[in-house]
Amino acid sequence: METLRWRDGRLELIDQRRLPLEFEYVACDTAAQTADAIRDMVVRGAPAIGCTAAYGVALEAQRHLQAPRAQFDAALEHSFAVLAASRPTAVNLFWAIERMRQCHAQMRGGTTLAEAAALLELARQIAADDVEINRAMGRHGAKLIADGARIMTHCNAGALATAGHGTALGVIRSARDAGKRISVIANETRPYLQGARLTAWELVQENIPVTLATDNMAGHLMQQGRVDVIVVGADRIAANGDTANKIGTYTVAVLAERHRIPFYIAAPLSTIDLAIADGSAIPIEERDPAEVTGFRGLRWAPEGVSVFNPAFDVTPAALISGLITEKGVIERPDAGKIRALFGN
Amino acid sequence: METLRWRDGRLELIDQRRLPLEFEYVACDTAAQTADAIRDMVVRGAPAIGCTAAYGVALEAQRHLQAPRAQFDAALEHSFAVLAASRPTAVNLFWAIERMRQCHAQMRGGTTLAEAAALLELARQIAADDVEINRAMGRHGAKLIADGARIMTHCNAGALATAGHGTALGVIRSARDAGKRISVIANETRPYLQGARLTAWELVQENIPVTLATDNMAGHLMQQGRVDVIVVGADRIAANGDTANKIGTYTVAVLAERHRIPFYIAAPLSTIDLAIADGSAIPIEERDPAEVTGFRGLRWAPEGVSVFNPAFDVTPAALISGLITEKGVIERPDAGKIRALFGN
Repeated sequence: METLRWRDGRLELIDQRRLPLEFEYVACDTAAQTADAIRDMVVRGAPAIGCTAAYGVALEAQRHLQAPRAQFDAALEHSFAVLAASRPTAVNLFWAIERMRQCHAQMRGGTTLAEAAALLELARQIAADDVEINRAMGRHGAKLIADGARIMTHCNAGALATAGHGTALGVIRSARDAGKRISVIANETRPYLQGARLTAWELVQENIPVTLATDNMAGHLMQQGRVDVIVVGADRIAANGDTANKIGTYTVAVLAERHRIPFYIAAPLSTIDLAIADGSAIPIEERDPAEVTGFRGLRWAPEGVSVFNPAFDVTPAALISGLITEKGVIERPDAGKIRALFGN
Repeated sequence: METLRWRDGRLELIDQRRLPLEFEYVACDTAAQTADAIRDMVVRGAPAIGCTAAYGVALEAQRHLQAPRAQFDAALEHSFAVLAASRPTAVNLFWAIERMRQCHAQMRGGTTLAEAAALLELARQIAADDVEINRAMGRHGAKLIADGARIMTHCNAGALATAGHGTALGVIRSARDAGKRISVIANETRPYLQGARLTAWELVQENIPVTLATDNMAGHLMQQGRVDVIVVGADRIAANGDTANKIGTYTVAVLAERHRIPFYIAAPLSTIDLAIADGSAIPIEERDPAEVTGFRGLRWAPEGVSVFNPAFDVTPAALISGLITEKGVIERPDAGKIRALFGN
């Protein structure tokens, strides 16, 4: 299973809106189509969005191979802008666009043909690196998981949220591969049900025992002693360790603190935004009310009701037991420890 | 709107499974049908279940009016048993059955005709009392609600959960009627969506501003300072104040404590079970996994996933700012204060 792949000059994405009922790829030919796919959540998950955006730029370069340099450059600038406007919270998107922009700056003295090839090669490298980074995170994180652990996770930070292996689910996969007999509690993650649809599906495919719970069962399950450790992903981490992740993560973190259950964030360095001092400055996307008033075609809320639909929330660093990165585990992350991570 | 009503010798219940898409009554002619309606959640909410069960006994008495006394008595005993087996957590069910049983004990020396009339009269009285009790609770509770308050509630503790006015929503209605400009955040309350379907519907009907949120937004909304006070109902309260209520209530209470937001339970004395010392002894109903893997005909979880579906959780008394009853508000409830409530 490849969450995203380059095939015959097109970007193909698993259509995650239809999982687990249908498994099919949709193709993108332009940066604008790629941005739509990100906005509409054909693809989601911070690392996967970054990889997708990189390929979106590469697509646009391929489309304008034969164009005069000025037109080629304008097309690339347009692709940076349209992709950056697709979703506001996950910083990996902006990180990937920035890497593509730097490549463009280096290559613009040469031919468009050479630059388009370099951009495609960089997009491929970003995706390949993502898998390697996730495997490194998995190795570091697996040491935190005891044999027999019952692991709660929220949303989907799996292979589907990355170019492969996953961040939080990467830790879980690596723990299983290390011979640990683990089981997972997947919070369903309303409104978009990434836990029920995507995490449950990934784990069933992997034969890792998984139990689905509604989000509001988290407190009860912890109170009953049925959760040993929590591992989730991240969409943006501020310089002090405050972490934006899927709505509901903060609630789980507060419950974990009350029940003295370790709460880990698994995320690559590309999710850390040193330009933001703390979580209060992370932009939180507000999505369509229709996601809350029902699901797919089925509406269950009455007409006339208002709706909250923030897609993310911010967990303060003080509630985070450790940050699992490709460079190792940062226990009790803070500004100093995070700065040191980039200093090496 | 009457949640339950006696009409032409039958018990009629609003079919709450279909709300808010359809508004219609279903009729019960026997105690067994009434028990099925409770189990299938045609009617739900602890006080409403109690009133419904009382009418279920009255139905069986009416059905056997002409029967010999032994057969009449057997039919009543059967009705007590079948109704008591419908749902395990809400104590009002057992309280109402016990009142009907006491009436039966008093009347069994007389004619079946007189007893059937007395049982029906008692069921009517239990329902009428419930509305009065809710209005008294509303008066006491409204004093706790500030002008302009943004009130979070979980599940539906409204007119639909009672014979009328509601417990938690009764407090909200009474606050509005007292001239306070309030607004409500309704947690959708997965898996059965009583908040999205029933609470939102009741409040829209009453022109009380209501905003729907998924359950996992509760922490974020409190963190953002958007919640002033929380009022919920209860299904069973132990002698020490530990309170069983709809799954997710405990999570909300933990979040409320962290954010220093007052957390109130609104419940009649009939919800208090002095026979149970603390919350650990309250039976928690586990319901059908299909409620979690989808909604109505729509399934979104993959085959092969296990499911948790506890219908209730227990909030320890230490997290409860006050218990709003028909006899007044018990701040920081404990065993002594609750005992005193029954001593008067």
